Amino acid sequence: MAARIIDGHGFAAGLRARVAEGAEALKARIGRAPGLAVVLVGEDPASQVYVGAKGKATREAGMAGTEYRLPAETEQDSLLALIARLNADPAVDGILVQLPLPAQIDAQAVIDAIDPDKDVDGFHALNVGRLGIGLDGFVPCTPLGCLMLLKAELGDLSGLDAVVIGRSNIVGKPMAQLLLAESATVTIAHSRTRDLPALCRRADIVVAAVGRPLMVKGDWLKPGATVIDVGINRVAGAEPGKTRLVGDVDFDSARAVAGAITPVPRGVGPMTIAVLLRNTLVSACRRHGQPIPAGL
Amino acid sequence: MAARIIDGHGFAAGLRARVAEGAEALKARIGRAPGLAVVLVGEDPASQVYVGAKGKATREAGMAGTEYRLPAETEQDSLLALIARLNADPAVDGILVQLPLPAQIDAQAVIDAIDPDKDVDGFHALNVGRLGIGLDGFVPCTPLGCLMLLKAELGDLSGLDAVVIGRSNIVGKPMAQLLLAESATVTIAHSRTRDLPALCRRADIVVAAVGRPLMVKGDWLKPGATVIDVGINRVAGAEPGKTRLVGDVDFDSARAVAGAITPVPRGVGPMTIAVLLRNTLVSACRRHGQPIPAGL
Ligand SMILES: NC(=O)c1ccc[n+]([C@@H]2O[C@H](COP(=O)([O-])OP(=O)(O)OC[C@H]3O[C@@H](n4cnc5c(N)ncnc54)[C@H](OP(=O)(O)O)[C@@H]3O)[C@@H](O)[C@H]2O)c1
Ligand SMILES: NC(=O)c1ccc[n+]([C@@H]2O[C@H](COP(=O)([O-])OP(=O)(O)OC[C@H]3O[C@@H](n4cnc5c(N)ncnc54)[C@H](OP(=O)(O)O)[C@@H]3O)[C@@H](O)[C@H]2O)c1
Repeated sequence: MAARIIDGHGFAAGLRARVAEGAEALKARIGRAPGLAVVLVGEDPASQVYVGAKGKATREAGMAGTEYRLPAETEQDSLLALIARLNADPAVDGILVQLPLPAQIDAQAVIDAIDPDKDVDGFHALNVGRLGIGLDGFVPCTPLGCLMLLKAELGDLSGLDAVVIGRSNIVGKPMAQLLLAESATVTIAHSRTRDLPALCRRADIVVAAVGRPLMVKGDWLKPGATVIDVGINRVAGAEPGKTRLVGDVDFDSARAVAGAITPVPRGVGPMTIAVLLRNTLVSACRRHGQPIPAGL
Repeated sequence: MAARIIDGHGFAAGLRARVAEGAEALKARIGRAPGLAVVLVGEDPASQVYVGAKGKATREAGMAGTEYRLPAETEQDSLLALIARLNADPAVDGILVQLPLPAQIDAQAVIDAIDPDKDVDGFHALNVGRLGIGLDGFVPCTPLGCLMLLKAELGDLSGLDAVVIGRSNIVGKPMAQLLLAESATVTIAHSRTRDLPALCRRADIVVAAVGRPLMVKGDWLKPGATVIDVGINRVAGAEPGKTRLVGDVDFDSARAVAGAITPVPRGVGPMTIAVLLRNTLVSACRRHGQPIPAGL
C-alpha cells in the first residue's frame, strides 16, 4: 500500500488562517497588528525571494511586515544599529535577519544582538538553551513545522523511535530536541554515522535534513514509518535545460514502504513561513501578556 | 576477559593537579587567584557535604573558594541580591548555587540571574544554548567529566554509536550534546524508551544517568563497549543496618562483557568537582584574556 502523503501545503494554509484570526483578535485588544521586521543584506537571489515571500505572507496574515533591504557592502556596525532600533521599537514583535550574510559581517554577532524575546527564528543561543531545558522561548521554524506535521499525523510521539539525519543548528539539532521533548527515543545521525540505512530501518520516524538529493531509499525504511523530508535540492529535470526540486528522500521508493511521507515540494517547505508567522503572533501575545490562541 | 576499570579517581586527581598549576601561573600574571563562590541555602545534609567538599577542593587547588551559607528561610530577593553582588565582584570568576533550593525560591530565576560568564555549573540557558550551537561557554561538570574519561579511554569518538540513558538537564542532555559534538551517533533514551536492552546492545558507548541501582545488566551490552556509570545510589549493604553506594550499572555482570567501565565509587563521581575547578580556572583565564592552559 502506498504511503499517505502528508499535506504540508494544506496544513500550512490552515495554520496561516489561524494565525490571521489570532492576529486580528490581538489587534482588537492591543490596538495594533503584530509586527515582523525582515532584514536582508545584499542581493543574493534566493534570499531576495525568501524575504519577499516572508514579507508578503506576513501582510496577508494581517500583520505588519516590514522589509529592510540593505546594500551588500553594509558594515556590521550599521546592521547592528538597525537591530538595536528594531529591538527598541515597541511595534516590532519579531526580527528576522536573512542568512547568509556577506563576508564582512559576523553572523553570530548579529544573531547575538537580536533581543531574544523578538528572535522569531529561534537562532539566539538563549532560545537554543531554552528549548534544551524546556523553557518557553522561540523554536526554529522549519523543525517546529516538522513537529506539527508529525503530531498531526501520529498524535502522541512518546516512546517512538525517531532518527534525525542532519545535525545543523537550524534543522537537525532543534528537531532532535523537539522530538525528545515529546518523549520519542531520538537518534541524531550525520555524515560520520556508520550504517545509516540500518539505523533508519529501526525508526518509526525518519526526519531527513541533509541536503543530498534522494539519499534515503525505500529499503532504508521500516514498513509503515513516518518520513519527513526537509531537503530542498534542485536537480536536472527530465527535459534538457530544465531543473526540478527534490527532497533528501527518494520519494518513489520510500512511498512504497513508508506509512506516511511529506512530498517535495508542498511538504515541509510551506511550513517554514507559516511557523514564522505563528512565532511572530506568539511573540506579540507574550509581549502584551495576552494568551496564545489555541491551535498554534 | 574482564573490562578495564576506568580510574576516574586517578584522572580527577591529575586534572586537579593541572588546574592547581594553571591557577598558580594565572595568579602570577593577574595578581590574584581564581575565585569560586559556592552558595548554599538551608541545611540539607547532602548539600552541606557537597558544598564543603567544593570549597575545600577549590582552596586545595590554590584558588579562592568562598562558601556562603544562608538560612533555609532566606527569601528569593536576598538570594538574588547576593548573586548580583557576586556577579559584580571582579575577584569572583565562578558562581555556583547548590541545588535543590528551598520551596520559597524559584530555582530557575536564580540560575537566570547568574552572569552566564561566571556560570561554572553551565546551567544558565545561554550556556545550554552555546553548547547546543557549538560556541564557547560553560558545560555542566558531570557530563564534561564523563567526556574526558571517554576521550582518555577511546581517543577519537567520531562515528561511534553512543547511547545516553537519561535526559536530565544536568547530565543526560548535555552529555548527548557533547557526544554529538565529538561526532558520535547519539541516541538519547529515557523512561519512555521501549526496548532499552536492545538499544544498549548496539552501542559502542553507554552512559547511564538514571538513578536506578544496578539497572543496566551485562547482557544489555555489546562485548567491548565502553560504559560510563553516572548513577550514585545508596542501597542496603551486606550487613544489616549498613548501606553502600552503587551505580546505575550492574558492575559485576557488566564488567564481564564491557571493554572498559567506570566503577562506583571512584569513577565519574570524583570528576564532577575536578571539572568544577577546571571551569573556574577557564573562567578566570577568559575574563582576563589569558590563554587556557593545555590539558584542561
Ligand atoms: N524550509 C525548508 O523546508 C528548509 C529549511 C532549511 C533547510 N532546508 C533544506 O534541508 C536540507 C538540510 O539543511 P541544513 O541547513 O540543515 O543543512 P546543513 O547545515 O548543510 O547540514 C546538513 C547535515 O547533513 C549531514 N550530512 C551530510 N552528508 C551526509 C550523509 N551522507 N549522511 C548523513 N548525513 C549527512 C551533515 O553532517 P555533518 O554535520 O557531519 O557535516 C549535516 O549535519 C537542505 O536540503 C536544505 O535546503 C529546507
Ligand atoms: N557527580 C556525579 O557523579 C553525579 C552528578 C549528577 C547526578 N548523578 C547521579 O546520576 C543519576 C542521574 O541523575 P540525574 O540528575 O540526571 O537524574 P534525573 O534528573 O532523575 O533523571 C533521570 C533520567 O533517567 C530516566 N529514567 C528513569 N527511569 C528510567 C528507566 N527505567 N529507563 C530509562 N530511563 C529512565 C528519566 O527519564 P524521564 O525523563 O522520562 O523521566 C530521566 O531522564 C543519579 O543516580 C544521580 O545521583 C551523579
